[in-house]
Amino acid sequence: MSQVEENQVVDENAPSKAALKKAAKEAEKAQKKAEIAKKQAETQPVYVPPKLTLEQMKDAKFGDMPLHQSQPEFTSDNQFTDIKLLTPGPVKIRAYLHNVRATGKSAFTILRQRQFTLQAVFFGEKDMIKYINSVPKESYVEVEGIYKASEQPINSCSISGFELEITRFFAITRAVSMLPLQVEDAARPDSAFEVKDTIFVKPGRDTRFDNRILDLRTPANQSIFKVRMAIQQSFMKFLIEKNFMQITSPKIISGSSEGGADIFSLQYFGQPACLAQSPQLYKQMSIAAGFQRVFEIGPVFRAEKSHTHRHLCEFTGMDIEVEVFQHYHEVLVILDQLMKFIFKNTLETCQEEIDFIRKQFDLKMPPTIEWTEETVIVDFRDGAKWLQEAGYKQSEVEDLNTENERALGKIVKEKFHTDFYILDKFPGSIRPFYTMPDVDDARFSDSYDMFIRGEEICSGAQRIHDPEYLKERIVAKGINPDTLKDYIDVFRYGCPPHAGAGLGLERIVMLMLGIEDCRQCCLFPRTPERLTP
Amino acid sequence: MSQVEENQVVDENAPSKAALKKAAKEAEKAQKKAEIAKKQAETQPVYVPPKLTLEQMKDAKFGDMPLHQSQPEFTSDNQFTDIKLLTPGPVKIRAYLHNVRATGKSAFTILRQRQFTLQAVFFGEKDMIKYINSVPKESYVEVEGIYKASEQPINSCSISGFELEITRFFAITRAVSMLPLQVEDAARPDSAFEVKDTIFVKPGRDTRFDNRILDLRTPANQSIFKVRMAIQQSFMKFLIEKNFMQITSPKIISGSSEGGADIFSLQYFGQPACLAQSPQLYKQMSIAAGFQRVFEIGPVFRAEKSHTHRHLCEFTGMDIEVEVFQHYHEVLVILDQLMKFIFKNTLETCQEEIDFIRKQFDLKMPPTIEWTEETVIVDFRDGAKWLQEAGYKQSEVEDLNTENERALGKIVKEKFHTDFYILDKFPGSIRPFYTMPDVDDARFSDSYDMFIRGEEICSGAQRIHDPEYLKERIVAKGINPDTLKDYIDVFRYGCPPHAGAGLGLERIVMLMLGIEDCRQCCLFPRTPERLTP
Repeated sequence: MSQVEENQVVDENAPSKAALKKAAKEAEKAQKKAEIAKKQAETQPVYVPPKLTLEQMKDAKFGDMPLHQSQPEFTSDNQFTDIKLLTPGPVKIRAYLHNVRATGKSAFTILRQRQFTLQAVFFGEKDMIKYINSVPKESYVEVEGIYKASEQPINSCSISGFELEITRFFAITRAVSMLPLQVEDAARPDSAFEVKDTIFVKPGRDTRFDNRILDLRTPANQSIFKVRMAIQQSFMKFLIEKNFMQITSPKIISGSSEGGADIFSLQYFGQPACLAQSPQLYKQMSIAAGFQRVFEIGPVFRAEKSHTHRHLCEFTGMDIEVEVFQHYHEVLVILDQLMKFIFKNTLETCQEEIDFIRKQFDLKMPPTIEWTEETVIVDFRDGAKWLQEAGYKQSEVEDLNTENERALGKIVKEKFHTDFYILDKFPGSIRPFYTMPDVDDARFSDSYDMFIRGEEICSGAQRIHDPEYLKERIVAKGINPDTLKDYIDVFRYGCPPHAGAGLGLERIVMLMLGIEDCRQCCLFPRTPERLTP
Repeated sequence: MSQVEENQVVDENAPSKAALKKAAKEAEKAQKKAEIAKKQAETQPVYVPPKLTLEQMKDAKFGDMPLHQSQPEFTSDNQFTDIKLLTPGPVKIRAYLHNVRATGKSAFTILRQRQFTLQAVFFGEKDMIKYINSVPKESYVEVEGIYKASEQPINSCSISGFELEITRFFAITRAVSMLPLQVEDAARPDSAFEVKDTIFVKPGRDTRFDNRILDLRTPANQSIFKVRMAIQQSFMKFLIEKNFMQITSPKIISGSSEGGADIFSLQYFGQPACLAQSPQLYKQMSIAAGFQRVFEIGPVFRAEKSHTHRHLCEFTGMDIEVEVFQHYHEVLVILDQLMKFIFKNTLETCQEEIDFIRKQFDLKMPPTIEWTEETVIVDFRDGAKWLQEAGYKQSEVEDLNTENERALGKIVKEKFHTDFYILDKFPGSIRPFYTMPDVDDARFSDSYDMFIRGEEICSGAQRIHDPEYLKERIVAKGINPDTLKDYIDVFRYGCPPHAGAGLGLERIVMLMLGIEDCRQCCLFPRTPERLTP
């Protein structure tokens, strides 16, 4: 539901023209640099030593490892240790070669596993130093050595109190010597690019996404996906404890879901089909099938030509639908507790990850999210009034535009000191036909959105569970009820009153962390122009 | 991966022709009955009393409730109780009207919540009896009454020691009076249809799936989806404890995934795209991006015209991919522990559900699954030899057909007393190009399938992580490497050795429980002919 009522193409919070121009120029520079690097990488012959044989490996101190085909020779009692679990003494690890530099007498390397980096040094034979220095950055390497306290703190690494004294060093797979994107550049904090006369060029967004597997290797990105997972797992954990059933609805559906225009169509063995824009109907069918309370986490497809920081053509929807006994606010209570559980759980379990993220996005990130124990529920009419009082143009029966959404977020933050609130009783005219009208004033409806930092993360409502009334509302909305016969018929076999909501996972990750763009919260994002990688 | 190498269209374990004919005839009968019922339901005028007003509701003892629009009148301190949590005394519940019959002096009803049924009786005023009897089966009702021990066990209900003495009875939403599928018929145990001269007609499969929301209301179906959820949650729980990262890969991808033919194509803003047949490439990219061990649960799309009990055009894939340190058998150890965790956890937490399922599928279900503490890993060459010894035609470098898969399952069961085993070292010729060849005998590969009851539930392998060797293998398979350039390039930026596997959730549910068809383990299945509901 999160994106459905919105056709916003312009991001009102966009930077100034001058800043945009500067950014474009820098992006162009970076792009060119990347292209040259790519070309060089493809054409430039680099000396690669012949691979060691399994026999040679036994005694070798360095060299390129033979292809790992699970040969018995690779099996030994000498176990590998995770970089985070190392203890002083002899150790063996595998990691990415984050950086390497050599002098005549030493080689200094930084090794990386996930978001963690460790310095590894070698003093000794010249040919080994030469070899280590020949291994391109981002190669995957196997290193043995002595793990020990470092003489002084190593600020360039996440593990700063210890270092590894290399005894053996092998390249498992070599990266190309000229990378299209330097992980170090991709990982550099924003502040590094803002310093006057800086030599660093911030990689452009397209360069990053074109080379996403390099981009994803940055500590901040490794951390974002840990946070994303924590949010998703918290969502499930909370709901399962509340006796929700997990459902999986089909993504290929007949005709067009919700009758919307922004759908991806396909042929299904000769029948017209499309990709589900939301699991709406199937959630309701699951309630009609007697499951009482259900949730689903799955892909949602929107063929919208939107280019804002909060739109994706394929995103992860987190949906719930529950039987209502007394009042649809039962769902608001669940959503409220759910979101707070997610906030608390994520902040508690992901503190280290959040630190890594803040380190990279240092300049741009707002402070940690604030919320109140008793959630603020604002009636749409009050919201409209507050906006009017603050000088904004806002009718109480028309939708909020993005600017007013943000403004209302600020007003609520000032009034109640919270980044999270619920806006209730939306005008019926801007909600889908299946939304239950308010019983006292039919201009409004039993529907709500949730906001974090003034941006919508969730949309929901009580649904109409009576087939005749549903038909009436469909006609009133100017839709031919015959086109929705299958939908209406769902309610002819007995159905509990019910309400639900749809949340967008990428938006929650973005807004909880306060990072700029929900594309950064998706492993391999899909936008109108981006179908790869 | 589970379905990809398979083009099996005939189910060798199919029933005899006579049985098929009989089943077809019965299905036809049931279909006709359903059609008549549907027609009647649409045309026959049924007396429906006028809805009560909110004012009338206060004192009324029975009647049709006004539309529930979250009016304040619906909010009271008198809470609803779940049917499983009732304690003797006055209670209020909402439930489906599973059955109703009345005499002059009494009304006997069966109320149903999820898989649980409870008898509710009324003795008293004739007009209330008449009203209760007028409410169609499967209507959703609100009932108040006194919960108390029953004088004798009520065998027709899941709660047999207690019953409800009705004091108030309201219809919330009425079902149509002639249902296209009777939930009672849909829930009847198989044995009821096998009795000589039975009056019961088993509903046909299409009738069930056409009216899936009624079909899903049976105790067995409610239970199947609880088991499905338990399996899915166990899968995640186990892997998260083993430090796996959850990933979400895009389902709309460029061109055709794995170069297969059975793909659903679509237009993506003017670019040719298709639905992912597996998250294979994205799992590998996540490993290359440094995530070390990843899993994904998500939809997988296969445009195969297969009509067997184990094929779906959209199913839930459960995929893993992990960095390999010493030997790809590290993944087999994970898969083995994972499956046993799933078996144990599901059997422990879903005993009640499994009983409900066995009750319905009484005749067809094999005994509970058996497994050994130390998992049986069979070398493909040994498997082929055992089949040959048992009189089957089986080459050691060709794939198993479904008959031989089952036969080998039986041989393994006899030899080792297990329904679960792993077949290792498949011939390379029948595996995809990215499969790592066996280092000693290139006719075989570092790949494996897992089987339950002689049917494949999982397919996996060590993948090639070296770009040059990958190219070599692609050429050897007769594929133009230019068409796979993007895939090969993933490995040019450094990549750990890795292996993985893809499991099919519906197949696991089906085979663990021993039910007949994986369509029954999918809420709203998609087959070549079925795109609705």
